[in-house]
Amino acid sequence: MDGGGGGLKPMDSEQLREYGHQMVDFVADYYKNIENYPVLSQVEPGYLVKLLPDAAPNQPESLQRVLDDVQSKILPGVTHWQSPNFYAYYPANSSVAGFLGEILSAGINMVGFSWITSPAATELEMIVLDWLGKLLKLPQEFLSSGHGGGVIQGSASEAVLVVLLAARDKTLRMVGKSALGKLVVYGSDQTHSALQKACQIAGIHPENCRLLKTDSSTDYALSPEIVSEAISHDISIGLIPFFLCGTVGTTSSATVDPLYSLAKIAKSNGMWFHVDAAYAGSACICPEYRKYLDGVEEADSFNMNAHKWFLTNFDCSALWVKDRNALIQSLSTNPEFLKNKASQANLVVDYKDWQIPLGRRFRSLKLWMVLRLYGVENLQNYLRNHIELARYFQVCVGQDPRFEALSGMYTLRLVVGAPLTERRHIDAAWKVLQDEAFTLLCSPLQENGNLPKSPPPIGFFGNGFKAEPLPQK
Amino acid sequence: MDGGGGGLKPMDSEQLREYGHQMVDFVADYYKNIENYPVLSQVEPGYLVKLLPDAAPNQPESLQRVLDDVQSKILPGVTHWQSPNFYAYYPANSSVAGFLGEILSAGINMVGFSWITSPAATELEMIVLDWLGKLLKLPQEFLSSGHGGGVIQGSASEAVLVVLLAARDKTLRMVGKSALGKLVVYGSDQTHSALQKACQIAGIHPENCRLLKTDSSTDYALSPEIVSEAISHDISIGLIPFFLCGTVGTTSSATVDPLYSLAKIAKSNGMWFHVDAAYAGSACICPEYRKYLDGVEEADSFNMNAHKWFLTNFDCSALWVKDRNALIQSLSTNPEFLKNKASQANLVVDYKDWQIPLGRRFRSLKLWMVLRLYGVENLQNYLRNHIELARYFQVCVGQDPRFEALSGMYTLRLVVGAPLTERRHIDAAWKVLQDEAFTLLCSPLQENGNLPKSPPPIGFFGNGFKAEPLPQK
Repeated sequence: MDGGGGGLKPMDSEQLREYGHQMVDFVADYYKNIENYPVLSQVEPGYLVKLLPDAAPNQPESLQRVLDDVQSKILPGVTHWQSPNFYAYYPANSSVAGFLGEILSAGINMVGFSWITSPAATELEMIVLDWLGKLLKLPQEFLSSGHGGGVIQGSASEAVLVVLLAARDKTLRMVGKSALGKLVVYGSDQTHSALQKACQIAGIHPENCRLLKTDSSTDYALSPEIVSEAISHDISIGLIPFFLCGTVGTTSSATVDPLYSLAKIAKSNGMWFHVDAAYAGSACICPEYRKYLDGVEEADSFNMNAHKWFLTNFDCSALWVKDRNALIQSLSTNPEFLKNKASQANLVVDYKDWQIPLGRRFRSLKLWMVLRLYGVENLQNYLRNHIELARYFQVCVGQDPRFEALSGMYTLRLVVGAPLTERRHIDAAWKVLQDEAFTLLCSPLQENGNLPKSPPPIGFFGNGFKAEPLPQK
Repeated sequence: MDGGGGGLKPMDSEQLREYGHQMVDFVADYYKNIENYPVLSQVEPGYLVKLLPDAAPNQPESLQRVLDDVQSKILPGVTHWQSPNFYAYYPANSSVAGFLGEILSAGINMVGFSWITSPAATELEMIVLDWLGKLLKLPQEFLSSGHGGGVIQGSASEAVLVVLLAARDKTLRMVGKSALGKLVVYGSDQTHSALQKACQIAGIHPENCRLLKTDSSTDYALSPEIVSEAISHDISIGLIPFFLCGTVGTTSSATVDPLYSLAKIAKSNGMWFHVDAAYAGSACICPEYRKYLDGVEEADSFNMNAHKWFLTNFDCSALWVKDRNALIQSLSTNPEFLKNKASQANLVVDYKDWQIPLGRRFRSLKLWMVLRLYGVENLQNYLRNHIELARYFQVCVGQDPRFEALSGMYTLRLVVGAPLTERRHIDAAWKVLQDEAFTLLCSPLQENGNLPKSPPPIGFFGNGFKAEPLPQK
């Protein structure tokens, strides 16, 4: 009875086995029935506080009782991101392989801040990000064999923050710390809000975060001319441009910024060029979509979220940099209590110095499992299938004169990315939209003259990627 | 065969069940044999790249093959944080309950940045942090019913960073943005390095991060007199003190800073006072140890890591603030693609605005499971048992004249915190130390006169907490 205090054995291996099986069954049953839930939770704000006690129990409760509560109280408050009918935001894929990786990572439960705290965690991460970097045909400088390398961040927000900090400090080392107020960052009004947040955190003056205007003339891509003009103007008034963010697959419409031209501008002005391919990067492991990354060779850093469209459970945001020392110079600390021989001899990578937090989970396991249990060809076909489903949806829309694709107006947006999505789910989604259009366009309001008799068609965005013919073998 | 591309069914519920059971068995077997592994991984830097292929496989591999690789290639590179013989750093506890919470969270795999993306995730987090806040007897202002509330961060590093940003921006709103270079932060030379890193990130001048000296006269606690003097001096030269960090349980020796006095100094200077109880906070759910938090009533923010010593798998760092709006003002962004009715009507909490990343996992599930499956009394006894084991170790040391407790010299440090640790593991650790002492003190070096004949005893730190008599019922 020793070892847990008062008879509690919190790590008994046979209880872990028994309860673990029960929980796996619970999750498996959830997936079996996932289509029976409304995708969007239907609860009202504050619903849960009415259902749960206001203090933790003094005595233990049974697992069955907790699972009953999960079923009756928690799941109604869940928005089912893994439902095949989920088309919001961008997907956050789960998969059996990703799920298994999470179980194993939680089982080992180590905190891999330094190499010594579990060499396998650091080394597997380096290896798997090299694998993924090769699949994406990233330039050699992004791989671990040179001065760069890959690292798993929790999110694209953290990825853009750490490279912004690296770029900020690199610049300040040249121009002096007191110039912080003069530093300027560039993106577009379609760049993810994470860039703005990173600027806020890093102490960049809010007025020095330039979200340059885009419009339909470039399909909402960043115009190199506008970027050049803005940079020239800022230099002329004594400011210091230091960071440019390009996007492959913007959040609102999956637009691709012109990477080559942007990289050239950044380089000629001594700026850091970051490429955010958080969502769309996954598709670029297919040869026919790799062209959307053309120009990444010239970037300083590149990010894609394996937790979006690559079957790897959240969180797993892959970041590659060409100059890992720039990251380390911004983010390292070296307190007495973390010193060890391997680190001090500079023989190893300590990922604590590549990220915001100190602690980190063993996240490479799940990405490794996804790559091994599915294999590259299956993954490519999985992505192609989603793009094909999105194209199918586009055909549906095109055949109905009440809708039109991609206008500058108020639009609907549908993203295919849930692992379970099949053609029948698209049909169902399309029927909902058609029914709503019928109601909207034939409503009493219109009859009363409050809406134009022939309203403009309802626009929509699909995945943004056009389906490409498969490459010749 | 539709739905996955090329026959791949990445979310088949029956495969999830079958493979999930296999993985749970793998983890259970790992725990069954955990004492057979050396705690510290014995591999050399670069060992893994020699064992794995240099590219991802094109075709899928079997789960069995992957598990074989985990056993033969990954586990030798793991430092076993859950081993009962792990006494390094601070513990990072796993438990059956925490493990189950991770499985469920990975199973649901939603991304809870806004309330609408899964109301249960936000609301359970608020409820469970209220539960834990009440167990710690935090003041009412830290609970969700008022202007404050709790939030789960990934780590104490992120916790101190977000409150530093909130305090920075609150100050800059008063004194103007251009004063960033004048802001000063205070902690001690025993404060966790996360404070320094947070300063680097937030753009605080490195020379304005004051890590004030401590010594044995205060048991390495921050001296209020020294803090007062430093603040007065900084004000006299035109700087702006804005943030003070106190620690309950420092990383090196589990020292407790004098919270009341520090809070008073912070308040009288209009500064934010943060209390970092990342490790030791857990013990304060026991009435007899709650005294170490006295003074937290006057703090602006308080942090403890449930993932350290509270049986909740990594990551789960609980942060409470009194003024949630200060956080939100620093960290919110409101892009078009995240707008929704509940948020815009200000009816709900959107945790994306309380943290660095946008996305977030359903981490409250595991903390909820720990509290429910073990109950408060068991958790208190679990913590008391570890403190008792540390005391037992102290007795061992005290009986051996070759060792002495807590000197100002080079010291050994032993932290009891792994769930599996029993008295026999302490005995084994103590035997290792005694054997080493024998070797050291009777070595040929000493005979050759290179070491003094009566070297000073070897110092040691225990958990830092002195075992207290249990409170009268």
